[in-house]
Amino acid sequence: MAFPRIGASDLRGIMAYPPTPAKPNAGDIDARDTVDLDETERMIKQLLQDGVDSIATNGTLGEMATLTLEEWKAFASVVVETVRAHDPDFPLFIGATTLNTRDTIDRMRFLRDIGAPGVLLGRPMWSEMTAKTMIRFYQDVAEAVPDLAICVYDNTAAFRGIIPTEVYEALSRIPQVVAVKYAGGAAIGFRYHNDLQAVGDRIKLFPIECIWFFAYSLYGERVPGCWSTTATCGPEPVLYLRDVLLANDLTEGRWIAERILWAHEPFIVSRDFPEFARYNIQLERLRYEAAGYIKPGPSRPPYYMDLLPEQHVESTLEHVRRWQQVRQEVAERLKARAATTA
Amino acid sequence: MAFPRIGASDLRGIMAYPPTPAKPNAGDIDARDTVDLDETERMIKQLLQDGVDSIATNGTLGEMATLTLEEWKAFASVVVETVRAHDPDFPLFIGATTLNTRDTIDRMRFLRDIGAPGVLLGRPMWSEMTAKTMIRFYQDVAEAVPDLAICVYDNTAAFRGIIPTEVYEALSRIPQVVAVKYAGGAAIGFRYHNDLQAVGDRIKLFPIECIWFFAYSLYGERVPGCWSTTATCGPEPVLYLRDVLLANDLTEGRWIAERILWAHEPFIVSRDFPEFARYNIQLERLRYEAAGYIKPGPSRPPYYMDLLPEQHVESTLEHVRRWQQVRQEVAERLKARAATTA
Amino acid sequence: MAFPRIGASDLRGIMAYPPTPAKPNAGDIDARDTVDLDETERMIKQLLQDGVDSIATNGTLGEMATLTLEEWKAFASVVVETVRAHDPDFPLFIGATTLNTRDTIDRMRFLRDIGAPGVLLGRPMWSEMTAKTMIRFYQDVAEAVPDLAICVYDNTAAFRGIIPTEVYEALSRIPQVVAVKYAGGAAIGFRYHNDLQAVGDRIKLFPIECIWFFAYSLYGERVPGCWSTTATCGPEPVLYLRDVLLANDLTEGRWIAERILWAHEPFIVSRDFPEFARYNIQLERLRYEAAGYIKPGPSRPPYYMDLLPEQHVESTLEHVRRWQQVRQEVAERLKARAATTA
Amino acid sequence: MAFPRIGASDLRGIMAYPPTPAKPNAGDIDARDTVDLDETERMIKQLLQDGVDSIATNGTLGEMATLTLEEWKAFASVVVETVRAHDPDFPLFIGATTLNTRDTIDRMRFLRDIGAPGVLLGRPMWSEMTAKTMIRFYQDVAEAVPDLAICVYDNTAAFRGIIPTEVYEALSRIPQVVAVKYAGGAAIGFRYHNDLQAVGDRIKLFPIECIWFFAYSLYGERVPGCWSTTATCGPEPVLYLRDVLLANDLTEGRWIAERILWAHEPFIVSRDFPEFARYNIQLERLRYEAAGYIKPGPSRPPYYMDLLPEQHVESTLEHVRRWQQVRQEVAERLKARAATTA
Repeated sequence: MAFPRIGASDLRGIMAYPPTPAKPNAGDIDARDTVDLDETERMIKQLLQDGVDSIATNGTLGEMATLTLEEWKAFASVVVETVRAHDPDFPLFIGATTLNTRDTIDRMRFLRDIGAPGVLLGRPMWSEMTAKTMIRFYQDVAEAVPDLAICVYDNTAAFRGIIPTEVYEALSRIPQVVAVKYAGGAAIGFRYHNDLQAVGDRIKLFPIECIWFFAYSLYGERVPGCWSTTATCGPEPVLYLRDVLLANDLTEGRWIAERILWAHEPFIVSRDFPEFARYNIQLERLRYEAAGYIKPGPSRPPYYMDLLPEQHVESTLEHVRRWQQVRQEVAERLKARAATTA
Repeated sequence: MAFPRIGASDLRGIMAYPPTPAKPNAGDIDARDTVDLDETERMIKQLLQDGVDSIATNGTLGEMATLTLEEWKAFASVVVETVRAHDPDFPLFIGATTLNTRDTIDRMRFLRDIGAPGVLLGRPMWSEMTAKTMIRFYQDVAEAVPDLAICVYDNTAAFRGIIPTEVYEALSRIPQVVAVKYAGGAAIGFRYHNDLQAVGDRIKLFPIECIWFFAYSLYGERVPGCWSTTATCGPEPVLYLRDVLLANDLTEGRWIAERILWAHEPFIVSRDFPEFARYNIQLERLRYEAAGYIKPGPSRPPYYMDLLPEQHVESTLEHVRRWQQVRQEVAERLKARAATTA
Repeated sequence: MAFPRIGASDLRGIMAYPPTPAKPNAGDIDARDTVDLDETERMIKQLLQDGVDSIATNGTLGEMATLTLEEWKAFASVVVETVRAHDPDFPLFIGATTLNTRDTIDRMRFLRDIGAPGVLLGRPMWSEMTAKTMIRFYQDVAEAVPDLAICVYDNTAAFRGIIPTEVYEALSRIPQVVAVKYAGGAAIGFRYHNDLQAVGDRIKLFPIECIWFFAYSLYGERVPGCWSTTATCGPEPVLYLRDVLLANDLTEGRWIAERILWAHEPFIVSRDFPEFARYNIQLERLRYEAAGYIKPGPSRPPYYMDLLPEQHVESTLEHVRRWQQVRQEVAERLKARAATTA
Repeated sequence: MAFPRIGASDLRGIMAYPPTPAKPNAGDIDARDTVDLDETERMIKQLLQDGVDSIATNGTLGEMATLTLEEWKAFASVVVETVRAHDPDFPLFIGATTLNTRDTIDRMRFLRDIGAPGVLLGRPMWSEMTAKTMIRFYQDVAEAVPDLAICVYDNTAAFRGIIPTEVYEALSRIPQVVAVKYAGGAAIGFRYHNDLQAVGDRIKLFPIECIWFFAYSLYGERVPGCWSTTATCGPEPVLYLRDVLLANDLTEGRWIAERILWAHEPFIVSRDFPEFARYNIQLERLRYEAAGYIKPGPSRPPYYMDLLPEQHVESTLEHVRRWQQVRQEVAERLKARAATTA
């Protein structure tokens, strides 16, 4: 039996979640070739050059839901090629969530054939899945494509509820499952603790960057990384968080963790997750556009940019203004440190 | 601008919801050709011959979620061909729900090209849709494929909540939208009343057969039909319901309505809809298999038959036993009536 | 063992749900004597004189939640006395829902001692109750005060969910339980059918007046009555509904049922029950005030009238305008009928 | 205008939440004098002697819902008297949650009159409260009894949802509101962060002891304490947590935080809060009984001990076994430390 090239122990640091860059016509229902492949290549190169530690694509904001199969293949091919040119062993997880097991397996086989090392995988969401069905689903796909590493995509809105602790325990027994993009209400507490016990060191449960500090403060190296969608607004703050935390500098970690949380205060994701989830795709496009680190382009139908309520636009832009300020603060911090050590 | 061949006024009587017959290997994750096309043709012919008034396919039980694109095309082609051979103007709605607008449009264009007159259409369900997004979605697809009639698929479990009355009002202004497979908790009351006012005679709001009598008792010809999944367990009781109701024989309608409800008492759909929705696909396969009117074959992954809890198996089989009894009672009723009129 | 004076078979026709009339100072947090006892007496006399068939008080709109114990006693005493003066056997149910079993028993004993024949009883709602706890609760109170008839108060908002069918079955085995103010989403369908089978003729499951026609159309004398809060906006339409339905005049029943539903179309209760439930107390006061049949006075803290959003005020007033029109139509109908029969 | 004797700055360390000890007959629906006042006095003295920093009573586990008014008065009187004998300025919050504003005010006045310095206050829960209603409620009671400090009781199960951040902001402007028994899913993340910003230093947001470490690790002295129900299973572990955290010994804090979480792993509260909430009262009694630090006696109707499912009994007892082990570990740790410093 084949095994993935990536293991849980390879995962450490920042797992970036970039979008699928779109051409200007992406909101046109008759367009069928909407992925901006040039910007895709540039974006991936930029993230690699800036130093993120792993990359996952095609979750919700990566528009797994709205890309055509051909667009998804074109995008995945460019991403895989770009990453492999940089480092063939770089932990990369391309999303392959579909409405059923067989379509997902076909997508995984495509990914394997183009040289992708891993897949980001939510569960079919037409019907609410029971615990037993979740386990069987991941067992099936792992067995069908054993040489692909799996990062489980946990999103309580998209997939209709939490992944129970008993399921995490079972998933940790599947060799292909190496990580979880952990949601859990973007908070560290009872549930995270129990899930962490359940998976041991067999799976990495990565929390969102905003709350990684909380997990690291108690669990240390058992939680050696986080996922970050905000990294695509400019990754410097999360990279700084990584550098100081993994150097066990909790004092500096406390500073940057607080600044990252401060920057997210206006963003609806931090205030009302169900409301965020209704506009997830557009909100992420909006903030990437405003931040300017990449060129995301518009979202695809049915999730049109112009369906975004005005108050969410404003609060998102305030969030980006704060993020830009934190990027500036980090730059100054680094300059000051360099001056000190020089 | 083109218009559909089917209008709201063409819809009357029983809209049957047959499954997608599966070959014995349908539960195998490596099978890619799982549709039993012979049984598909036989099933459609049987339903047409027995006298259902319209047919809709590929909702939840029709495994829109789990068929591959090629399987769906093969199934749709046989259904369309079989129906057209019977009657080119027969109201047929093939399901084309996907995760986004463009994939649905591509499927609708395929359906139009093979001669299908209509489409059964739920909304993309990765994210919970707001009212505005629902309206835009149906406007988009109607504009893109204007010669296809649309039956809106309302399923509060699959599509994350109700369709608000204001949305029904807006949908009724889209010429292509002619009907709704109305869910609404399988009950007639405030919501149904308000939705009926909102759509006027521009859309037919078809309730489930079990509760059609309630709607007909007050609204009469404004609700001239119902949808029926149980029809594929043997349609005689629902056809009898249709015949007596549309002849305004409320006394006989009361008798058969009560018998149909009685037959559904043990079935989990009538007791706990969220629990039913977790096992919808398997439960429907199970009862069709037990009833013997068609040969459904097994469900497809990830919704395996063996994931069905034992208590649901037993209560479903009791439901089928009752249904068979009601079929018998109807047969005797018809014989007695024939004798009387002879 | 003692038994109640009222049995299920005594319940037929309209069960009115009047509020607890308030003095002008009822919104003052320092007022402790806010019940308008004169208006209470007048209101009850008026309802009795106009011909309602049973009366229940102190549910949600009757402000079980916001009356002090002394106010509740004063109100209950006047209601009991007024009703008994009219007819000692009149079916009257005074609300005694509290946060626990013992307080409810003490209230029930008070009611028994002042001569009340029945109690309207929701369950303690601090914690969500399991089925077993619901059954035990009603068994306990029935055993403790066996000579009081119980009308179960079903309200999915206040009491955190439905009453499962298995609980209805168990409640129907308690001799004191004679009726249910049935909620069930204000609709007739699967759930109502199953619950009706579960209770047999041992309990009357009264639906809201707006949908009684649906139930009567199928079940006839098994559902010989309904509850009505709108009756206190002027009971003529519901009394007319009762008269024609119980005379089995379904044609006329159809007319008045449709008019009653029409009058409720603008009212938020018919459009969004969870939203209605947030403002239940104030909304009922508002419409009673506007209708002018009784003088309700203001609601009590914390449910202040001025917390009502403007759009709900407007839609409620439109509902009342429609109701007044229906009252007028009924008056003319009765006049025309009288002329015909004269 | 009067002001409370306790301010937010007086709150630091462990806020214990002991139950209302019950006599053996507390499960009898005819008992009306079920509080074990001797054990009450002993329990309070023990907690004070062992060194908890504040005490709050009569939340959910303290059976605010099931005590009669007279029992509540008797219990409150003994608690206030016992605490005052120890230290008149000790921060004590007696629960006074009722179904309405006026009853709560009357209870608060009683508490003030017997010398209690504070009140633990959830909101009326018959109807789901809107943000504006929540604010008005707390404003009303604070204005009516200005000399009583208020600890807001946040319980998403009992009070139908979260307290929105905007409400926390408004509450922090009421001088009487000094603290919150913060729930928030027993986790530290986005919501906690935003609420903390909203209240500034005007209110203390105390998390549960199990997750205090996470909050302290980032916010330090802005979160100088926690609430603890487990303290009544033997407070040594939480007192040790307090001592090391407030001495800023994060290394030792990490150890004891992890042990406390470990002890809670089997307890249903850490795994499924909605399920816990259905049995909250009985589960707390069960574990206090098993731990032996106090004698809780049985719970009161309708929340009978024998309604507790067997699996919850077993997992709770395992939780207690672990807690006892942690108490032992702490004792040894302290002994070793004493030996070191000696």
